[in-house]
Amino acid sequence: MVDYTNFIDYSRAELLNKMRQHLNEARLQHCLNVEQTAIKLAQQYNGDVNRAGLAGLIHDYAKQRSDTEFKQVIVQQHFDPVLLQYNNAIWHGIVGAYFIANELHIHDEQILNAVRRHTVGAPQMTTLDKIIFVADYIEPGRDFPGVAQARQLANTDLDAAVRFEICHTLEYLIQKQVAIYPGTLLTYNALVPNH
Amino acid sequence: MVDYTNFIDYSRAELLNKMRQHLNEARLQHCLNVEQTAIKLAQQYNGDVNRAGLAGLIHDYAKQRSDTEFKQVIVQQHFDPVLLQYNNAIWHGIVGAYFIANELHIHDEQILNAVRRHTVGAPQMTTLDKIIFVADYIEPGRDFPGVAQARQLANTDLDAAVRFEICHTLEYLIQKQVAIYPGTLLTYNALVPNH
Repeated sequence: MVDYTNFIDYSRAELLNKMRQHLNEARLQHCLNVEQTAIKLAQQYNGDVNRAGLAGLIHDYAKQRSDTEFKQVIVQQHFDPVLLQYNNAIWHGIVGAYFIANELHIHDEQILNAVRRHTVGAPQMTTLDKIIFVADYIEPGRDFPGVAQARQLANTDLDAAVRFEICHTLEYLIQKQVAIYPGTLLTYNALVPNH
Repeated sequence: MVDYTNFIDYSRAELLNKMRQHLNEARLQHCLNVEQTAIKLAQQYNGDVNRAGLAGLIHDYAKQRSDTEFKQVIVQQHFDPVLLQYNNAIWHGIVGAYFIANELHIHDEQILNAVRRHTVGAPQMTTLDKIIFVADYIEPGRDFPGVAQARQLANTDLDAAVRFEICHTLEYLIQKQVAIYPGTLLTYNALVPNH
């Protein structure tokens, strides 16, 4: 059904083996769920099914790296030093793309951008970015207050689903009194209708 | 009770006349309420009662200027151009201090900073900044869901009241789908315990 040969020179089974070295079974299952959800969304919204499936599958590849490893990469690869004030929740997307390029040898910029943006979004998002952003939020394993509404929106209006997700993420962070990455605010500000 | 002679070379009655030229009666009453609330908070939290009263009184001096007038000042006085993407809610504090210095001839930087910060706060706020920020939110004329809790917090812990206010302001803006000024986020990020 999907064909990843344009982006990896090894098989999907080998990719899963590489992922298993860095992810526990629960996280891998989440990745498989996001892959399937992203494929469905791509079919529905005229997206690139192959890129959507692969980006969905690998989006959390770096999720279980240590803080130390992330900090080293941020410094050595000259990422924005502001990132050092944040944590895994922000790093595993923005910096995670580096691990994917470096270790999985996936260099397609559209796929890497979708991974980079899957948590914080971006003021201008491609259809692929939106698909991964939303698929990560609504995949069948997710269970949180609001997920039903998110799924319903994703079924009828991808942009509305993205906006719903960014608003609910901000509200969740505020309720938990957690710092908000400035990039997440830029995404929110670009998506809301009122200025 | 209060003595503003260190900051204005005319009487409080003259100040009220100057304010009346630019504010309707409801807005002037709000300013008088914030003056009284700020004085009480200054007494309670060992603040400068005279600066608190005067800053509270004048904090909304520029609130009813036209968007055109604000935009002219932002451009001509070289304020951050990002401000042009926002509106009166942000301008009347940050840019309002310019009108106060220019027209009311109040040049005390502590007072002007408290006016500048009364809507968006700042990562580092003085006691005076906090008093004006909170007084504006809880003065007796205010009536909104949460104001009782804000008043209770202000009565026992000024920092907690500031944190409550910034969180509720962000939540309110998100519910209304209104863009958030990046400076407001910097304040929030500096005040919340979790990074």
